[in-house]
Parts: sequence; C-alpha cells; structure tokens
Amino acid sequence: MNTSPIHEKPATTPERLDFYRRLDEKDLAPLWETLATLVTPQPRTACVPAHWQYDRLRGLLMEAGELITAHEAERRVLVLENPGIRGRSQITNSLYAGLQLILPGEIAASHRHAACALRFIIEGNGAYTAVDGERVSMHPGDFIITPSWTFHDHGNTGDEPVVWLDGLDVPIVNLFDTSFAEKYADEVQPVVRAEDDATALYGTNMLPFGYEVRGHNSPLFAYRYEPSRAALAHLAQRGAPHPVHAFKLQYANPATGGYPMPTIGAYLQLLPAGFDGASYRSTDATVFAVAEGSGYSVIDGRRFDWTHRDAFVVPSWVSVSHHAPQGEAVLFSFSDRPAQQALGLWREQGRAA
Amino acid sequence: MNTSPIHEKPATTPERLDFYRRLDEKDLAPLWETLATLVTPQPRTACVPAHWQYDRLRGLLMEAGELITAHEAERRVLVLENPGIRGRSQITNSLYAGLQLILPGEIAASHRHAACALRFIIEGNGAYTAVDGERVSMHPGDFIITPSWTFHDHGNTGDEPVVWLDGLDVPIVNLFDTSFAEKYADEVQPVVRAEDDATALYGTNMLPFGYEVRGHNSPLFAYRYEPSRAALAHLAQRGAPHPVHAFKLQYANPATGGYPMPTIGAYLQLLPAGFDGASYRSTDATVFAVAEGSGYSVIDGRRFDWTHRDAFVVPSWVSVSHHAPQGEAVLFSFSDRPAQQALGLWREQGRAA
Amino acid sequence: MNTSPIHEKPATTPERLDFYRRLDEKDLAPLWETLATLVTPQPRTACVPAHWQYDRLRGLLMEAGELITAHEAERRVLVLENPGIRGRSQITNSLYAGLQLILPGEIAASHRHAACALRFIIEGNGAYTAVDGERVSMHPGDFIITPSWTFHDHGNTGDEPVVWLDGLDVPIVNLFDTSFAEKYADEVQPVVRAEDDATALYGTNMLPFGYEVRGHNSPLFAYRYEPSRAALAHLAQRGAPHPVHAFKLQYANPATGGYPMPTIGAYLQLLPAGFDGASYRSTDATVFAVAEGSGYSVIDGRRFDWTHRDAFVVPSWVSVSHHAPQGEAVLFSFSDRPAQQALGLWREQGRAA
Amino acid sequence: MNTSPIHEKPATTPERLDFYRRLDEKDLAPLWETLATLVTPQPRTACVPAHWQYDRLRGLLMEAGELITAHEAERRVLVLENPGIRGRSQITNSLYAGLQLILPGEIAASHRHAACALRFIIEGNGAYTAVDGERVSMHPGDFIITPSWTFHDHGNTGDEPVVWLDGLDVPIVNLFDTSFAEKYADEVQPVVRAEDDATALYGTNMLPFGYEVRGHNSPLFAYRYEPSRAALAHLAQRGAPHPVHAFKLQYANPATGGYPMPTIGAYLQLLPAGFDGASYRSTDATVFAVAEGSGYSVIDGRRFDWTHRDAFVVPSWVSVSHHAPQGEAVLFSFSDRPAQQALGLWREQGRAA
Repeated sequence: MNTSPIHEKPATTPERLDFYRRLDEKDLAPLWETLATLVTPQPRTACVPAHWQYDRLRGLLMEAGELITAHEAERRVLVLENPGIRGRSQITNSLYAGLQLILPGEIAASHRHAACALRFIIEGNGAYTAVDGERVSMHPGDFIITPSWTFHDHGNTGDEPVVWLDGLDVPIVNLFDTSFAEKYADEVQPVVRAEDDATALYGTNMLPFGYEVRGHNSPLFAYRYEPSRAALAHLAQRGAPHPVHAFKLQYANPATGGYPMPTIGAYLQLLPAGFDGASYRSTDATVFAVAEGSGYSVIDGRRFDWTHRDAFVVPSWVSVSHHAPQGEAVLFSFSDRPAQQALGLWREQGRAA
Repeated sequence: MNTSPIHEKPATTPERLDFYRRLDEKDLAPLWETLATLVTPQPRTACVPAHWQYDRLRGLLMEAGELITAHEAERRVLVLENPGIRGRSQITNSLYAGLQLILPGEIAASHRHAACALRFIIEGNGAYTAVDGERVSMHPGDFIITPSWTFHDHGNTGDEPVVWLDGLDVPIVNLFDTSFAEKYADEVQPVVRAEDDATALYGTNMLPFGYEVRGHNSPLFAYRYEPSRAALAHLAQRGAPHPVHAFKLQYANPATGGYPMPTIGAYLQLLPAGFDGASYRSTDATVFAVAEGSGYSVIDGRRFDWTHRDAFVVPSWVSVSHHAPQGEAVLFSFSDRPAQQALGLWREQGRAA
Repeated sequence: MNTSPIHEKPATTPERLDFYRRLDEKDLAPLWETLATLVTPQPRTACVPAHWQYDRLRGLLMEAGELITAHEAERRVLVLENPGIRGRSQITNSLYAGLQLILPGEIAASHRHAACALRFIIEGNGAYTAVDGERVSMHPGDFIITPSWTFHDHGNTGDEPVVWLDGLDVPIVNLFDTSFAEKYADEVQPVVRAEDDATALYGTNMLPFGYEVRGHNSPLFAYRYEPSRAALAHLAQRGAPHPVHAFKLQYANPATGGYPMPTIGAYLQLLPAGFDGASYRSTDATVFAVAEGSGYSVIDGRRFDWTHRDAFVVPSWVSVSHHAPQGEAVLFSFSDRPAQQALGLWREQGRAA
Repeated sequence: MNTSPIHEKPATTPERLDFYRRLDEKDLAPLWETLATLVTPQPRTACVPAHWQYDRLRGLLMEAGELITAHEAERRVLVLENPGIRGRSQITNSLYAGLQLILPGEIAASHRHAACALRFIIEGNGAYTAVDGERVSMHPGDFIITPSWTFHDHGNTGDEPVVWLDGLDVPIVNLFDTSFAEKYADEVQPVVRAEDDATALYGTNMLPFGYEVRGHNSPLFAYRYEPSRAALAHLAQRGAPHPVHAFKLQYANPATGGYPMPTIGAYLQLLPAGFDGASYRSTDATVFAVAEGSGYSVIDGRRFDWTHRDAFVVPSWVSVSHHAPQGEAVLFSFSDRPAQQALGLWREQGRAA
C-alpha cells in the first residue's frame, strides 16, 4: 500500500489567491487545495484508541443517578466520547456508544427513531426493554437490539441499578440526513405480546409458515447470554483458536443469516487462557466490552489492560492484538462492518486462517 | 410526523456543571445535553438548496485552465460547495460534486481510490476516461462511472476544452474511515482493451457464459447519451407523465439490475413541455444537471430558474417540484439513494403513482 | 380458472395418418395430436390421495426385519407408493417416501447421492444418523436432513427397533438426469465431530465470524422435536389459528432463513382440539406424518381418519382440510414447495389469512 | 467417480416374493428391489444424441402446412422427439422442442400456460409474436421468450412461410404437477403497447425509476440477432477462444442479470474457423440450433455433421466437442441449467479456462 498522498498541494500565488476569492463568491472551491486531505492513501482517522475502566466510571454513573432522573434525562446515559473527537458524542467516526443507567422504579419513556440501537447488559437484573409491544428482561451478557423505527422503552421493576452499554448508528443516520424520531403518545407502550415471544417464535430454527422477509431487521431481538456463551464454549472445544480472533461468533438474523441490523454487527469472542493473538487491522472501528475475565489488547502499539465490564475502542485501520495471560476471557464487540460491506468499503489485513 | 424534539434539554445547575466537568476528564459526556440535536424528529440538514449557472461559471473554469495545469492540479476541478456547509468540499452532507476541465493535450494522471466517482459530460468532445485499461471517449450527455479502487485517468486528445460534472461519495468514505488511494506507477495506465469493450460485452443484454457477479460495481461503465435519451423518449410516448417525476429512468448495472455503484444512483428524466410537477421530498439529497432545455424547480418554496448545463441541488427531506413551461427539458441527477436503501434509511413523501 | 382444454385434438384422416408415419421415421411427431394432454388447464395428476395406517404396516416392517438384513438391503425401506402410480417408487409425482427400519446392532452402510433426503423419526430410540463425519442420535419427532452429496450412514446401537419416514427428491433428480451416487470406502464413515456439533454451532442464532454461505443446504442438519414442538406450542398461545393451517411453522436454514434443502420443505403444525379447518389447495403435493394425536383430513372429498404415526398424502391441486375433533394433534409434513417456488411454478388457492 | 451401483439387488426367494405380494396389497414396495435403478452412480439417461437436418425436414414442415391449418392445429409444430424416448414429446428428459410453421395470413390463437417457452427464428420474415399486449416481429436469429402465464399468439402478416424452433419446459411443469393453461377470450389479444416497447424500455441498461423486480421472468422478451451477434463478434476479437466453448454468451434478464426465465437458459456461441473444441460434459442436456455456418460435433463418440438451420441434442453427462473446419459457425443453444443450478443439481466436467 502506497502511503504517500496522491496529490501535493500546489503553490499558492497572489493570482491564485485572488482567483480563490472570486470562486468563493460563487460557492465554488479549488479541489487541488483540499484533494490531499479529502482523498487519503489510508484511513486517517482522528479517532484514537481508548479505554474506559468500569470501576472508575461506576461512581460517576451512580452520581448521575442522583443528579438527574431517567424521566428528566429521557435516557440517562454517559456517552463514551472518543478522545480524538471530543464534543461529537461519538466513540468512532460512525458510531455512538454510552453507558445507560436505570434505577429501580424508573422508566425511560417510549420513543422511536431512524437510528438503530443495540444494548449489551453490563450490570444488574430486574430491568426490561420493550420493543414493539414486547418486553424482554435484561440480564448481564444479554444482547438486545432495537431496530430502526421501533418504539422502545426501558423500565426497572427490580431493586438494583441496571447498567448497559448502548451502541447506535447516529453518525451514519446524520451523515445521510435521514434522522426521524418521535415520542410515543404515552410514557410506556402497551405490552401486547408475551415476554420472549420473538425468541420463542424465531429463535428455534423455525419460521412461521410462508414467512416473508420484510425490511432489514431481525425479527429476533433478544440474544441471551447463556446460549450464546454455550455456542462459544462449543466452538472452543472444536479445535485450535484462530490466530487473531481466537474463537469468535457473530449474532445472526435467523430469517436471513445476515446481521441483525443493517448498519451494526455484533460479535462474541472467547480468548482461551494464555491466548497471545496476532496483530490485525480492519476498516471497521470496533467497540469492545469485556463480558468475562481480564487481559490486555495492544492497539496501535499501546497496551490496554482491561477487565470485566470495561469498554475499549479500536479505531479504523489501526492494528490490534488480544491477549489473555490471566485466564479465559470473553469479549463482546460491535462495529459498522455490515454497512461497510453493503457499500463495498470494508477491508482487513493480517487475517490468518 | 411529529416535529417536536423527542427530548428537551434539562436545566443546567451548578452541581450538574461540576459533574459535567468531571465527566469530561474521563472522556464521558451527558447524553441529555445533546440528545435533542443528535436525534432530531426530521432531517435537520445544514445544507441548503443551491443553483450554479453554467454561463456564470464557465469563465472561471476557463480561467482555472490558465492558472493551473491539469498536471499540477492532479484534477482541475471547481468544487460545487453547498452554501450551507462551506469549506467542506461537499454539495450535500454525503456527496461531493465538482466541474472538471481538461484542456486539449492535457492528461489527468492515473490514480485510484476507495471513493467511487461518476462523470456526466457537460461540454466538449475529444476527451477520454480510461478505467482499468479501457479508454472511453466522452461526449456531452454521456454518463460514465469510475467504480471504487479502479485505476482511472483522463486525457484530452481533441482541440477544445472538455468539461464534466464529477460526483463522488468522498464524505461517505470518510465517515466510515475507509479511504484508500494510490497513484499509478506511470502518468497514464496502458490501454489493454478496445474502446467500448465493456459496452460491447455487457451492454447488449447478454453476459459471458457462466458469468459470476463479483463485488458491487457494474461491469459496464459508459452509458452513452443517445441510447439513454432514446429510452426516455420512448417512455414519454407510452403514457401520461408521473405527477412528480414526469418520465424518469435510472441507470442500471446489467449484471444485477441494481445501481451501477453501491453508494450513488443516477437518473435521467424528461419533463414534457408544459409539465407542472407536484411537490415531493425524499431523504436522498439530489444533485441535478440540466442536460437539455430550460425550466425551473421550486425547492423549499424558492424558485430556481435553470437552463442547459446548469447544476442545482435539493437537500434531504426538502420539498421540490419541477416545471417546464418553455418546452421539453431533460435532467440528469444523482443521489446516495442506493446507500440509504441498503442501510434501511431511505424515505420519500408525496409520491403519487 | 378455465378448465376446458386449450386444444381439441384434430380429426384423424388417412392422409394425416400416413403423414404421421413418415414423421415418425424422422423422430418427429405432430404436436396437435398430444397438445391437449401435454398442456392441461389444471394439474391432472395421476396421483391420488392415500393413507398408510402405521398399525397395519408395522407388522410388515418387522417382518422385513426378519426377511432381509440392513446390510443386504443397503437400506431396509418399505416404499410408500402412491396407488395412482404404482411401480414407480413415488408417493407424489416428484417425491419418494418410505419407512425405514433399523434393528439393534445393524448398520446401513455409508454412501452419498445427488438426491437429498429427510428423515422424520417415527418410533424407537438408540439409532443414529451420521452426516459428513457427525453422528446425531435419533428420537421420535426429530427432523434430520441429509443434504445432496453428503456421506451418510445409519446405525442402531440401542436395543429396540427404530423406524423413520424417509423423504427424497429422487424423481426430481432423475427428471433432470442428474443422478450421482457412490459408496463410502468403508461401511461406516469416521466420526470427526462431536454429536450435535452442528446444532451447537449453527442452532443458536449465531454464526461463525465472517461466515459465508456456500451451496444450498443448511449447515444445521438435526432439528430436535422438543424445541420445535415448544415453538409450536408458543405459536398456539399467541392468537387464533389460521383457518386452513391452524398453527404451522417451517423448518429453516439458520444461515439463510430459507428452506433447509433446495428441493424439499418441511413443516410442523398443530391442530388445536376441535379445529375444523377450511378447504385449501396448492400445487405442492404434500406428505403428512402424524406426530401426535388423532383426527381426520378431507382430501378431494374423501375422509381419511388418521392417528399417531400414520402417513398420508395430498396430491397437487387437490383440496384438503384438516380436523381435530378428538383433541390436539400435531402433523409433520413435507413437499417440493421450495423447488416450485424457485422455478416460479407454485400456486395456492383458498388461503385465508 | 465411482460408476458401480451403490447397491446390488438381493436374491429373490419364495418367501420374499410372497412378502412382496403382501406389501403390494398395502401400496408398499421393497426399496431394495429398485434402489439400484432409482439411485444411479451417474446419470443414466434414456435420451440419446440426435440430429435433425433442416433440409430433410423442411418438406415435411411445408406438407404439414397443407395438411392442417394453424387454426385447427392450435400450434402447427413438428415435435423433435428424442429417439431414445419416443412418444413422450420430449427432446431431453426435461425439455420439449419443436419446429413451428406459420403461413402467410395465419394466426396461432392466443393462450397462456404455466410452461415457459422460447422461440429461435429459423426461417422467414413477416411473422410476429404477441406477448402480454405487445407484438414483436420475428426475424431469423432472433431469440424471443414467452414467460410463464403470459398470453401469447403468433401471426404471419407477410408473404412467406415462417419457421422457428420452440423450446418449452413442459416436462418440468408436469413433473411438479403444476400445469395450468387457458385460452384468451378472443383469437387474438389486443395490442396495447408499441412494437419493441419492452426492448426500448428495458434493453438499454436503464430501468424505470424505482423499478422493483417481481417474479422470475425478464421484462425484456425479444433479443434481436443483430446486437447479440455483434456482441459475439466483439468477444471473438478480444482474445483466444475458450478450449471448449470457443466464444459464448448467455442471454440475460436486464433487471437481474440472471437467466431470462427460471427454468431455461439460452446461449449463443461462435466457433472460429478451424476451431477444434475439447471434450466436455455437463448435466444439463442441451439443444443446439445452427445459426450460421457448418461444422460437426462429436457427441458420445459419434460425429454429427451439421449445417445452417439444423438442430441437434446433447444428452445429460454425455461428452461433446464442437468443430468448425469449414469456417466460422454460430450455434444457438438452450438447456435447463437455470433450474438445475437453482436446485443444486448442476455439474460439469472437463471445463478448461
């Protein structure tokens, strides 16, 4: 890969400057002044690797629980902002991530939006997410999706705080200028289907007779940790780990085999005890959450030591390797790989079979 | 559609401000401070409707031809910058557009990039575009694509200036942090196939025996104006015009029936003399170039009178209607509709059959 | 639907007969003599509705177990021959069905063929099917596929006879002249993966990271009765039964959402106690096996009273209704609907939502 | 490939014969008696290679024109019957072919059927085929499709006999018991669209704005010889011929890139002067018609010398090589390859790149 710019900015002369001024008046600009920054030989992201230690955040999350109600906040979330692009509510150039807290008795009111959302449960039991008339309880390790334009609300009917990691494609929606959102007429949508209805119907390798796929989203929206973890354990017993990814599965839409949502893919991977992963990079910047155990990742040459419940981010085209010297570890992750693949933009490097 | 924000920003108190400061130190931010601007009830683009009159630009283009060579500029393009987002080299929030000039005897050197590009020829004969070893001559009205990561160079072997409209998905590529680019080793790539080879092979409703689709791009990359215009004329003889679009066709990938490239769709439409179009809006902001005739469009309530070779842009979710009081007119246009549809984001309103 | 023939056979004259004789010498034939039988206004199948009572067959099956070994028979199967087309080893015009018996200690040797096969377990525990190096135990109600060209053998390591219903697409394979078959070098293929490996990997709504679909067959090949039955029970609690199908699910390929094999679809349906189904017909002749309970079906005006373990067949375009006056019943069924749909041939009539 | 049967028929004993008789009474049959013929190690087709010399048939065709009117015959066709399976109106095990004659002033009345049909024009000008309200004139070398369930009629408004080769999937439709057919209320359907409307709309690499694919059939139904032949000529100038297929193209559905109809694919291939093709076989039995020139093919070891307007057939899995010692030749062909591929049954052997 050639890493020199495809163009060197031409010299600036008084005539040219004058010309640029006259262009400017007509909503025109000289491409040759910006070409080198618009079209770079490799992704030159402003995002940087970053790591959020849950133990150091948890106090702030709980403090937020005292400072503002879920009702007032609409969603009581601490956004994980990439240090390289502070102020934009983004963890990568295309994705949003945050830690959401809901306290016993609280409700996060029902709304819907064009952005699609995922939840990975970090801590606590007793909360639920309602999606299009169905409530699913949330337990640590569960992966739940809220597809585009589905009404959803959250509630905590238990007696302990519940925290989850949110991932949304808000920057993608906003790049395309396709944001829509509205509140539900009431704070909470009515429950019209039994809990785990979608899982019972779509989660067992059967589909309703004559089922036809409509739209881009999985009809199954809750992926429980236990069966996902069991599948991972099974994969780990089958053979040697992949040199980069160890043992890794992706959450699938049972009606298509594709990703659960069109813009965000999610993965669960097990690093066996002692795993020393090879270096790898891909264009889909990836957000990781530690589901089990401890270990470290080397991202762009820097070592990040992570443990259970931490989050970290690997920017686009930055090399990463994962290591589990202290015992088995499980990482949940998500990225915009489905969108990049659909648009013909995704690349990877260093993948060994 | 509810147009009120889904969330009102909570009151700011000294305690909260102090809290926000402490969040800031840990690369965290309170979602409730930004939610209303991140997730809007409707697309709230900074882009505005805009119109570039070719007659008023042409002099500047020719002046650029004197101020800088194609060699020095790499690509001698005047970028059409949306007045609402000046300085970002964008005509919409997701697309780039510009007018490129190549003078007799000049060459725009061979390079390739992840961004995909289209050309719609505005003026002049005698130039060519070379794509992956094949040269195609360019004539006014021709539509030519340069798919992602294909080497391409341009040359003018004729005796008059040649100008075309460029459209690229650079902002999409950069949102996803997936930019790659490199120069060809030489200024010009070798010609290894006859002119119009791809058209002869893929443009006649036949495909090579056992053909398998690979990747997202059309194997046909030059769509001549004459047959496209004839198809449009035929469509116009078949029946009444569509109330919004009059008579409109989209350029297609003959190997899939889909769009020629995964991120940008292109269209050609004929407004019959006297056409008075109904109002319509969609989420794919659209760039128009006038291929024939004169008329006007009402965009977001403002009237833009356009004529042959002009360009104008309709932002996302802004209403537009087209009118041809002075006789038949033909509009070429392009938008990111393929990407929006692939990602489940596209909407339209006001379309009557 | 017009049911008169599209053509009446012309009168036969001596001149014509002489002409036909001369055509015959040149491998030619006059279409007008056969058109009315070749192209019929409606499917005019020679197949008839039929019913096989398991209690009356079981003795013969066991007698077969004494008369011939699995080794000598290769597959000890009593073919269910449609009474309308005896001698062709077919239950419908496009499908084969049979009851296979394997006795304790026996092995049905490993082979593979272009035809794809399904098994629905009728009676007994202790047997297994091995598919491409993986053994799965078989239990009543399980649905197991043997996709095209996969080595498979069966064995009974238990202490009771095991019987299952076989369904194959042999007539389809032979229509297209695409039969291939070969024996495995040894009687039994080696076991290279753990039991239920495929279920553990592909049956939990996850897929291996970067999974790519190859071919037309499901990577999951055993669908256990318990989870399928539970999904059906869930469906039955959700609302009113469909007037024709009551509560019906189809087995799905988790990697695509499509049918498990390209030529045969399989279904499981629950008739609630007292269900009195409406009349319906479709072009995919369907083989039913009674998984639970008793009831009756009216096929082409004739009533067939069936009970647990029976099999019956509904020919193409013949009306059928299902009834469960004696309590809940569960029907397994299979048909060539996937093939008909892929080829644009499938129709149905009488389906109410 | 193992060519021995996967099973040897067991010995017949009196006890077994008695048992088989008792099975027979219950619509049962012992699989082990028929397994070896049902599931063969290779396609064991009854079809044989065959060749119809047009010069020797033409007289009979014209005689048919005197013996019966198009009106009385409904379709005046001499069926090309495969000598290995006489009496079944089939040229291969899955396809029908015939030569149809229409005389000046005649009409073949409008009807439709589930079977899909193709026409390859052999001789004469002045006739038309009407498909769903559009008439297309027929000229030698043109390829025209009549998709499933589209009303179609033929007429000859010129002054010479017109002959074409018909290809239909009647045996496939009948295997699946999915035949439907009906006559149009009148002899001729009304013409509601201009001639070549579909070609003008769909044949120029553009599609109507917002076009959505419905069903399995190409919206383009006439593929003229001139552009198809020109594409072939272009292909022949590009490089060396394929060792088996020389220069070969397939007719494509412009809305999908797939085959024009779901069951039958059609091809046009050019053998350059002196071409001496390599041997090849595939499971899709193929019907050839000679569009230009003379040459010979070696099919299953037998040499068939063919010339302009002849037809010949290559059965499934029988080796074939093509030779053009006397100069350039062009072959049109069709087969059921699309169906075989959709059902996962297609194989080939001997294809060199």
